[in-house]
Amino acid sequence: MSELTHFDAAGAARMVDVGGKDSTRRRAVAEGLIQMQPETLHLIESGGHAKGDVLGIARIAAIMGAKRTAELVPLCHPLPLSRVEIVLETAPDAPGVRCAATVETNGRTGVEMEALCAVQVALLTIYDMCKAVDREMVMTGVQLLEKAGGRSGHWRRET
Amino acid sequence: MSELTHFDAAGAARMVDVGGKDSTRRRAVAEGLIQMQPETLHLIESGGHAKGDVLGIARIAAIMGAKRTAELVPLCHPLPLSRVEIVLETAPDAPGVRCAATVETNGRTGVEMEALCAVQVALLTIYDMCKAVDREMVMTGVQLLEKAGGRSGHWRRET
Amino acid sequence: MSELTHFDAAGAARMVDVGGKDSTRRRAVAEGLIQMQPETLHLIESGGHAKGDVLGIARIAAIMGAKRTAELVPLCHPLPLSRVEIVLETAPDAPGVRCAATVETNGRTGVEMEALCAVQVALLTIYDMCKAVDREMVMTGVQLLEKAGGRSGHWRRET
Amino acid sequence: MSELTHFDAAGAARMVDVGGKDSTRRRAVAEGLIQMQPETLHLIESGGHAKGDVLGIARIAAIMGAKRTAELVPLCHPLPLSRVEIVLETAPDAPGVRCAATVETNGRTGVEMEALCAVQVALLTIYDMCKAVDREMVMTGVQLLEKAGGRSGHWRRET
Amino acid sequence: MSELTHFDAAGAARMVDVGGKDSTRRRAVAEGLIQMQPETLHLIESGGHAKGDVLGIARIAAIMGAKRTAELVPLCHPLPLSRVEIVLETAPDAPGVRCAATVETNGRTGVEMEALCAVQVALLTIYDMCKAVDREMVMTGVQLLEKAGGRSGHWRRET
Amino acid sequence: MSELTHFDAAGAARMVDVGGKDSTRRRAVAEGLIQMQPETLHLIESGGHAKGDVLGIARIAAIMGAKRTAELVPLCHPLPLSRVEIVLETAPDAPGVRCAATVETNGRTGVEMEALCAVQVALLTIYDMCKAVDREMVMTGVQLLEKAGGRSGHWRRET
Repeated sequence: MSELTHFDAAGAARMVDVGGKDSTRRRAVAEGLIQMQPETLHLIESGGHAKGDVLGIARIAAIMGAKRTAELVPLCHPLPLSRVEIVLETAPDAPGVRCAATVETNGRTGVEMEALCAVQVALLTIYDMCKAVDREMVMTGVQLLEKAGGRSGHWRRET
Repeated sequence: MSELTHFDAAGAARMVDVGGKDSTRRRAVAEGLIQMQPETLHLIESGGHAKGDVLGIARIAAIMGAKRTAELVPLCHPLPLSRVEIVLETAPDAPGVRCAATVETNGRTGVEMEALCAVQVALLTIYDMCKAVDREMVMTGVQLLEKAGGRSGHWRRET
Repeated sequence: MSELTHFDAAGAARMVDVGGKDSTRRRAVAEGLIQMQPETLHLIESGGHAKGDVLGIARIAAIMGAKRTAELVPLCHPLPLSRVEIVLETAPDAPGVRCAATVETNGRTGVEMEALCAVQVALLTIYDMCKAVDREMVMTGVQLLEKAGGRSGHWRRET
Repeated sequence: MSELTHFDAAGAARMVDVGGKDSTRRRAVAEGLIQMQPETLHLIESGGHAKGDVLGIARIAAIMGAKRTAELVPLCHPLPLSRVEIVLETAPDAPGVRCAATVETNGRTGVEMEALCAVQVALLTIYDMCKAVDREMVMTGVQLLEKAGGRSGHWRRET
Repeated sequence: MSELTHFDAAGAARMVDVGGKDSTRRRAVAEGLIQMQPETLHLIESGGHAKGDVLGIARIAAIMGAKRTAELVPLCHPLPLSRVEIVLETAPDAPGVRCAATVETNGRTGVEMEALCAVQVALLTIYDMCKAVDREMVMTGVQLLEKAGGRSGHWRRET
Repeated sequence: MSELTHFDAAGAARMVDVGGKDSTRRRAVAEGLIQMQPETLHLIESGGHAKGDVLGIARIAAIMGAKRTAELVPLCHPLPLSRVEIVLETAPDAPGVRCAATVETNGRTGVEMEALCAVQVALLTIYDMCKAVDREMVMTGVQLLEKAGGRSGHWRRET
């Protein structure tokens, strides 16, 4: 296992030099889950139609959150994203809501952080809108599923 | 279980009116965990001294992230935070790093979202700095631990 | 008619001193309209259910936009908003979509700019989502409708 | 008239994939007007010299606003702008101030939203600086005038 | 000389708790200088009228910069500023431009950082606009001049 | 000495058109110093280990500040930075802390402003963390050291 690349030989943090990398098409997919009371999930499900579209709002927040990643994560490179797609599905067995984010760019470094950040913001937004009825929700299982493009090639989490 | 307060009778989202609430001292505590390979944790632990202070950087990112909460979470009220404190501890049994965030304000609404957002940003930042050696880290167990101040009084998660 | 208060005697711009004003409850209401082809409006109306909720997204953008006002308008005071409410209605006679924004704060200055900014961002967002089918939409009639609180008292636009 | 591209088949909003588009030089021009009392316009005109340069400040706000477009409009792609030019002219017949914004990029998608956003922020800024003397100003006629570059070629609004 | 208050006993950084402090009127004044070639200063001076108002733009950037302080300085508390005033004067003897910033708030902590940040952004903006003709400009003497309000009372730099 | 390029013939500010420039690798290096009491420097030096890592936090703030440059400096082009490296050294003879920032991009315009902004934010952050023990610190000598890439070629400040 190699050293942490975000630090120089003296231990000082840096934004890693990616200027020598090729600008290629890159994609990352991440997922996460927010667990909640069955009644909370029921409120979200019934809201899709007329009583407040929790998932629609979380989706927008996630897309906007992906664009803010480099402002939040100190050593992250700013990247012009070319695609953000968010899937939010109710998971009755959790019970809760599952989020998957796919992010793409044509750039010199990957978009894993953007995909993970989008998932986090989606879950936070669901928490915010449901916290008045359920304080005990838990955000969990936020992880990278897939990464494509760049020197390291295609990687997919084994399940 | 009541309705979701972030929507009006027709289902339209809104920033809930808190103008009639008292401005009181409020506190929230949240926690979360990032699980990783034992070797990754070892790299973080050895870095505290000379090879790169991953936890110190995550702490700063978390404090700054708390201040950006209302920009990320659509219906969140902007609040002038009066205190942000972040505890990051290595958890050898996970193995991983545990984060706890305490946030306070003197305001008209609580700071649960700020505490949760701080935890999420801390975990994301750790992920970013270690992802070159460990893509499979998982952020998990992000939840509210305590909430004090305001009409609903003091609440603490049962363990 | 008095001088412009945002400039000192020498003509230099400044953020006007409001430190001596009372912190009171203040409200502003603004409105605006985006005119479009009848077919565009039809696409928006049919989207409320399953094909894409243009108005729901514009509402969220408007609420978030209200929170960013002081970043966009140079001499605007930052204010902790206590309420933002956005009404979006289709206006078949325009044809188009009408937006009204109500913003409140407990602060030392009014929230007219926040209400107007929310309306502008709502209309921009509708434009963005429909521009692929209708480039000629026009945003129009963006104006203040009402203002309450503070020394100048209650004002309502005559119609 | 086609479907709205910002939504998938199930109606979920997305940031449209532009990764397959060519990166070409693109330009957009937008305009808008703020109408006001003749006395308000007179104050603006006399301020150009020594008493406060309302138009100069609005121009700066518009340029800065163009750079923030992707933060305000949820599904907008972040783009590295290569040129922003703002023309502000007094329109004695309105009476009011007319704003035109020209924005360019070398990118994978157009800059219509940036040009429109720049116009909106210019008009908002003028409103802010003059609102103490004229609450009834109206922002109107905000529209796209021209669009060049990309697959759809050159388009110009007919007058 | 006491310890650094931004760290706890274990050396972890924190946003210091100001929740117990009184919310009082506070003011800070800071200054700084940008030195340049005499020809560069001459270009700035001649621009005040028709050829580009460098100082007017720097003033606006400084006011807007003051509002962003808590986003830039990690442990800074976000504060609703009640006044920002920027004085920019040509200093023929330097030669260069001198900037002074006065910032006020009604809050629980001081606004020294906001005043210093405003000065820094003013000087940076002047550098940006003149760098094509003079790369060797130096920003210097950025310091606090005065601080009023809060427990520590009134302080003024001795000259 | 030529005219200021940020203004058109009529004196209106603009974001200069760089669309016709080549996208090449560009680098800028800037430096600055914060002077302080010897005791303050001693506190910083002793904090590197256990009592609070002032320089580590300033380094992170500087990297994040570099990414925000185009939001602070009105006419600055937004650029996707490919590298940011910050060196912070104690300068016992000043006494104080010296900061050097190296920034790179592959873009159509230089990154001098980003390097200077990074230095300014580093110094501001040090000031913030030490101001409780030393209000009289002075930030000084902020200047460009080197610039490479683009039509104007390689430039280095003579010493």
